[in-house]
Amino acid sequence: MPILNKDMTLCISLAARPSNLGTRFHNFLYDELGLNFIYKAFTTDDLEGAVRGIRALGIRGCSVSMPFKEAVIPLVDELEPSAAAIDSVNTIVNAGGRLVASNTDYEAIAALIAEHELDPGQRVLVRGSGGMAKAVVAAFQGAAFDDVTIVARNIDAGGALAAKYGYEFTADDPVPDFDLIVNVTPIGMRGADADAQAFAPAFVDRAQTVFDVVAFPAETPLVTAARAAGKRVISGAEVIALQAARQFERYTGVALTREQVERAAAFSRAE
Amino acid sequence: MPILNKDMTLCISLAARPSNLGTRFHNFLYDELGLNFIYKAFTTDDLEGAVRGIRALGIRGCSVSMPFKEAVIPLVDELEPSAAAIDSVNTIVNAGGRLVASNTDYEAIAALIAEHELDPGQRVLVRGSGGMAKAVVAAFQGAAFDDVTIVARNIDAGGALAAKYGYEFTADDPVPDFDLIVNVTPIGMRGADADAQAFAPAFVDRAQTVFDVVAFPAETPLVTAARAAGKRVISGAEVIALQAARQFERYTGVALTREQVERAAAFSRAE
Repeated sequence: MPILNKDMTLCISLAARPSNLGTRFHNFLYDELGLNFIYKAFTTDDLEGAVRGIRALGIRGCSVSMPFKEAVIPLVDELEPSAAAIDSVNTIVNAGGRLVASNTDYEAIAALIAEHELDPGQRVLVRGSGGMAKAVVAAFQGAAFDDVTIVARNIDAGGALAAKYGYEFTADDPVPDFDLIVNVTPIGMRGADADAQAFAPAFVDRAQTVFDVVAFPAETPLVTAARAAGKRVISGAEVIALQAARQFERYTGVALTREQVERAAAFSRAE
Repeated sequence: MPILNKDMTLCISLAARPSNLGTRFHNFLYDELGLNFIYKAFTTDDLEGAVRGIRALGIRGCSVSMPFKEAVIPLVDELEPSAAAIDSVNTIVNAGGRLVASNTDYEAIAALIAEHELDPGQRVLVRGSGGMAKAVVAAFQGAAFDDVTIVARNIDAGGALAAKYGYEFTADDPVPDFDLIVNVTPIGMRGADADAQAFAPAFVDRAQTVFDVVAFPAETPLVTAARAAGKRVISGAEVIALQAARQFERYTGVALTREQVERAAAFSRAE
C-alpha cells in the first residue's frame, strides 16, 4: 500500500457483522492497479446517519449487507433496475452527491446464468426464500425460465416469492425431477449446517447443473457431491467474486479482467 | 502500510481546503507503531451531516480546521477546557459514541510557553486577531502573563480579543519595547506575504524571544531575522507538530516521544 494521502477516494461497506472479504478484495485491486482509493468495512446502529455521512464526506461507494439492504432504499436518490427488480440494494454509488443504488448480487447471478449458457427450457428447483433467493428467482425470470419451483420451509415467504414471479411453490421436497437445482439456504455453510447437503442425492443424480449460492466454504457438501457426480457446478464463490467485481467497476470506473477478479477473490478468501 | 482490514480504526479531518499534513503525520506514526488505524482528510459542505456520519460510522477521531472550528461546537457532546477557553475546537474524540471536543492548538502553545520557560513577567506583543491569535492570547493568560499587547488591523476583532482577556489593544505599531513578540498573522506565509517580515527589525532587536505561528515555511523572514540576531525562536512548525501529536495521543491512547513527533512532522512536511 502507498502512504495514504488526502486525495484518496474512500469506499466503505455497511453490515451488521462486517467481514474482511470486501475490504481485502477492493484494496487488493486498488493496490494492484495503482488506484488512489481505500476501502473499509463499517457497522452502524444509525443507517440514516451513516448515509448522511456518505453524502457529507463525499464517500464514493458503499456496499450494503444484511440487515440494511431494504432499509436503505428510502435513503438513496435512485434505484437502478437491478435493485428495483428485487427491492434490495447491495451497492450505492455516490455520483457527485446523487446516491444511485443497484444490486450486484442480482447482476452476478444473471451473468452466471448467461455465462454458463443455462437453457431456459430446463426445469429449475430453488431451495430458499430469503433475500438472496429473491435475487436468484428474479434472475431466472429475467433469463426467461418458465419452469421454476421454489421449495422452502417458510410457507409465507416461499409462497410470496413464488407468487411474485409466477412460479410454483412447495413446502415439502417435490419428486426429484429437475435439470437445475439451486441452493439459496445456509445449508452447507461454515458455522451453520456445514455437514449437511442441501439436496438429497436423488436430486443431484437427476440434475445437469448444481448451483450452490453458499460461498463459505466454496466446497460445500452439495458442491462436492455434484462434482463427484460429474455435474456442472456453479458456486457461491463465483457469485461473491463477480458481485464484488461489479461493485469495484462501479466505484472506480475501471473494468476488470477475469484473471484480476479471480486473484482478488483468492486473496480476499485467504486469511 | 499493511493491507487494510475491517477492524482498522478510522480517524479523519474536516477542512474547507484539506492539506496532506495530518494524513501524512498520523499515517506515518500508525505505520511505525504498528497501530491498526487509518487517517484521511475530508472536506464537506454539510458539517452537521459529517458529524452525524462520525457518530453513525464510529469514526474514532476528527481533526477540525477552518472554517468549522466554532460551528462544530453545538454538534459535540462535551467541550474540554482547552476548547471552552477559546470557543474553538480543533479535535473531536468519539469516546464510545460521546463526542468530546478539545483544542490542541491551545494546548500546544501552552506547552511551548512552558517548555521554553518563558518568563510571565515579560512584556509580550501579539500581532493578529483571528482564531489562532485567540489561542495564543488565552495561553499567555493561562501562563499568568500580565503585560500583553495585541496589535491588529482589525479594530473590532483585536479590541474584542484584548478586552476578553484584559490585555491592551492597539491598531498601530507601538514603540518597539517588548521582550517577546508573537506573529499570528499570515505575514511571511507561503502563498500569502511570503517575503514580508511580520515585525520591523527594531522589534526583533529589542526582543529576547520571537514566536512566529506561521508554519509554512518553517523559516519565515521573521524567523530568519530572529535567528540571525541570535534570538530564541519558537516556530509555527513546532506548534503544528505538537498539536498533531496531542491529537494522535487522544485518538490512539499512545504517548509519543519527542523524537517520534519530530520524525512524523518531518515526514508530513516532506512532499
